[in-house]
Amino acid sequence: MTLSRHFSDRAQRMKPLAIRDILKKGADPEIIPFIAGQPEPSLFPTQAIGYQSNHIFESQGPEVLQYGNSQGLEKLRHWIAGRDSHVDPNNVVIISGSQQALDISAKLFVMPGDKVIVASPTYAGALGTYSLYGADFIGVPCDDEGMLPEALEAAMQNDPRLIYCIPNFMNPTGVNMSLARREHLARMAQQYDVPIIEDDPYGELRFEGERLPNIQELAPEHTMYASTFSKILAPGLRLAWIVAPDWLMEKLITAKQTSDLQSATYTQHFVSELLEDDFIVHHIGRLRHYYKKQRDVMVTAMKESFPSEINYSIPTGGMFIWCELPEQLNATQLLEQAFDKKVAYMPGSAFFHDGSGHHTVRLSFTIVNETQIKEGISLLGGLFKEAIASSV
Amino acid sequence: MTLSRHFSDRAQRMKPLAIRDILKKGADPEIIPFIAGQPEPSLFPTQAIGYQSNHIFESQGPEVLQYGNSQGLEKLRHWIAGRDSHVDPNNVVIISGSQQALDISAKLFVMPGDKVIVASPTYAGALGTYSLYGADFIGVPCDDEGMLPEALEAAMQNDPRLIYCIPNFMNPTGVNMSLARREHLARMAQQYDVPIIEDDPYGELRFEGERLPNIQELAPEHTMYASTFSKILAPGLRLAWIVAPDWLMEKLITAKQTSDLQSATYTQHFVSELLEDDFIVHHIGRLRHYYKKQRDVMVTAMKESFPSEINYSIPTGGMFIWCELPEQLNATQLLEQAFDKKVAYMPGSAFFHDGSGHHTVRLSFTIVNETQIKEGISLLGGLFKEAIASSV
Repeated sequence: MTLSRHFSDRAQRMKPLAIRDILKKGADPEIIPFIAGQPEPSLFPTQAIGYQSNHIFESQGPEVLQYGNSQGLEKLRHWIAGRDSHVDPNNVVIISGSQQALDISAKLFVMPGDKVIVASPTYAGALGTYSLYGADFIGVPCDDEGMLPEALEAAMQNDPRLIYCIPNFMNPTGVNMSLARREHLARMAQQYDVPIIEDDPYGELRFEGERLPNIQELAPEHTMYASTFSKILAPGLRLAWIVAPDWLMEKLITAKQTSDLQSATYTQHFVSELLEDDFIVHHIGRLRHYYKKQRDVMVTAMKESFPSEINYSIPTGGMFIWCELPEQLNATQLLEQAFDKKVAYMPGSAFFHDGSGHHTVRLSFTIVNETQIKEGISLLGGLFKEAIASSV
Repeated sequence: MTLSRHFSDRAQRMKPLAIRDILKKGADPEIIPFIAGQPEPSLFPTQAIGYQSNHIFESQGPEVLQYGNSQGLEKLRHWIAGRDSHVDPNNVVIISGSQQALDISAKLFVMPGDKVIVASPTYAGALGTYSLYGADFIGVPCDDEGMLPEALEAAMQNDPRLIYCIPNFMNPTGVNMSLARREHLARMAQQYDVPIIEDDPYGELRFEGERLPNIQELAPEHTMYASTFSKILAPGLRLAWIVAPDWLMEKLITAKQTSDLQSATYTQHFVSELLEDDFIVHHIGRLRHYYKKQRDVMVTAMKESFPSEINYSIPTGGMFIWCELPEQLNATQLLEQAFDKKVAYMPGSAFFHDGSGHHTVRLSFTIVNETQIKEGISLLGGLFKEAIASSV
């Protein structure tokens, strides 16, 4: 252990994400896993991917395995830009999963002690990345429309360096930010001239309601937008993208280059082929339909089994249902008993920058079948009832 | 451009690599490219990769497209460890190209102002990454056995935080560090208790001579070793690995996780399948044979065409021949004339931390055919002769 004294301040601040250990324990096939935002594997387009990854050599030759450029394959950047008429392919950078957008944004903006505004709660992976760069978080509490405007305005008074947000079907709460709140957030960024990192993995998984504009559309000069193929194709490809304004592009590409040179040329090529026809439109339709049904089954089961003391709201998209247990319960402690009953969830405290939220729980409805949902929710309902009864 | 004021000190230090613009200009098919360390695409195992990337779904199911763990696929880590009897799979982390090892090592060790020892010259991508983290480089001059021991010992007096090195067929000089120098470097790291980052993309491309031990074998507790599938399979896969001692593992995996969660599950799976039989052994044999012949053609051409004032040494492996022109010549300026003659190389100054080496040139013999090598070297020989004649 002699050499650990050499670790940088940055390394000293690194902590493994709590979800890692829970996922390891939850990998036991006897456990009903409401843990993570993993897509359902039976929905992965294996045939299309297998075909294209083999066929690409015939159509494009061996160069699809060569080094490519750091910004990413032009064809793929065109497809991404084409979905959104106001985006230019030159403003797109291909990255290896949207987690990399967080790391790159931290590299570009965050020095130790800098204030970073986050929703409270927010994605644990963002907290992990920004905190190793020394971010000092300002948490903005949320209701079922997103960040509370007054709290956000108060946060803006503290000279923030960056705002991190997930407007579409937020992780972990599932909340879809309302149009008014989106406009307010965009206005705040412009008025105080602070960059926004908009993280959008779930936007396409909308079950009902109209698509709302991204912050990137409302404040394009202030927004670095990230989205990913992880939830609409498959996470094991590690393929995602950033859309950014001109003033950011050179630094952004250089940051990507110094991080890992470029994302996989091969994957970019065969995914581009896959996107050529209407396949993805139909595929996203299937995903929406499937996950909506899953959500419905879970909500119905929760209505039946959960005690009335537990609050939760019904998400209109995404992968998660957020629950607030009575204050006197501790979700991390209860998880041990849940594991004993062969069911697992993600304790909500992992999503709070200040470690609060001990009584909150995130449930994922993605990789469990209907029977598992009913059984797992019933088990959890029983567990929570017992815990409430013995706590009063 | 208002928001660029928000860039971190780190972002202010970012500079695009010089090779990027040269590669762009050199992509013109009329230019003979001695520029980069790109493998020859006709040697990429497209059939094997195409087959495995399709077949993997039959043998392993859709889970090969799911999230995986941050350390990397166990089967692949076993294969890597199995090549080297003293390595444990638990000490291996899969990464997305060996550039990522540099970024991760910088994250783990380098704070602004920290001294980092590098060979002078060394890999430009390492200089780019460490410098954005604020490294203060100490360059150690080299001869044809590697870093000069006395200069290295002097550098060790300056409280270095890290030593970065490429012992096998160094980029850019092609020098293979001698056993005595390897032992000396390992001893220095141990004596002064300083971590070494050993970058080994070229070790398998050995044309002659015995394999020499890696620094990782000589000073395992002090070495974070990185190697890659880029040169032995294909760079477009973005698959590489780190071998590190126990004390480093937890921070290393966390650093990988916060950077991009994990490397592509899919790619790790189909590459693991590919590695199951003797394929890779034979494939590396073919690569050695091919690149050795390329080197021979280039050296023969250089003997014929290059003026005697130019010094170069003959590499015993790797992808590069390093040339020193007479001091009064400037290789960056001459590159413009080379482009006019439809041939291009990499000016050596990009590989010096202090921007020196204006009269040095790196030639790559990998993606050019024999005719191109003969023609390109003849053109360069003429250009350099003219330049020498007009400079005296």
